[in-house]
Amino acid sequence: MATLGEQDIAARLAGLDGWRLADGAGPAAIERDFEFADFAAALAFVNRVGEAAEAANHHPDILLHGWNKVRLTFSTHSAGGLTESDFDLAARSGALS
Amino acid sequence: MATLGEQDIAARLAGLDGWRLADGAGPAAIERDFEFADFAAALAFVNRVGEAAEAANHHPDILLHGWNKVRLTFSTHSAGGLTESDFDLAARSGALS
Repeated sequence: MATLGEQDIAARLAGLDGWRLADGAGPAAIERDFEFADFAAALAFVNRVGEAAEAANHHPDILLHGWNKVRLTFSTHSAGGLTESDFDLAARSGALS
Repeated sequence: MATLGEQDIAARLAGLDGWRLADGAGPAAIERDFEFADFAAALAFVNRVGEAAEAANHHPDILLHGWNKVRLTFSTHSAGGLTESDFDLAARSGALS
């Protein structure tokens, strides 16, 4: 899958609530922070995202921290950047929160 | 719960397989990296750790990354450092991997 250029990335980010380009020296990635009522709710979200990721065979990095917060980071490592898959899964993950 | 001093931390780390002091400017923390056969196995481990954390009401930061790797980080935020609880849960988490 081809990586997206800067303009395509900006256009897709504009259509996604809460997602931003991740800082860092590595390949381009998008990330979003989620906050839940408690650890159990955060972990349940992680499992819903995990199920969607498995179905799509496209896996985000998932950080469950501060007992009720989750940060998701999507990138397509095999392509070395951001692809349509990242934005598809990002949108679906947001709908699962 | 009182935080542990350097010598106590070193003694407890010496008895724990794979755990190390975490880098970083924040309060003292210990971390360990785990690797699994696939995403499903990594997520199953996260859930086992989550169950133990809920039972103890002491929650690590959990990073599921690279589709099959998990980094656990324990610290006692309410105490501003490492306590016995961190080493207890770290030992139990290791046994769940």
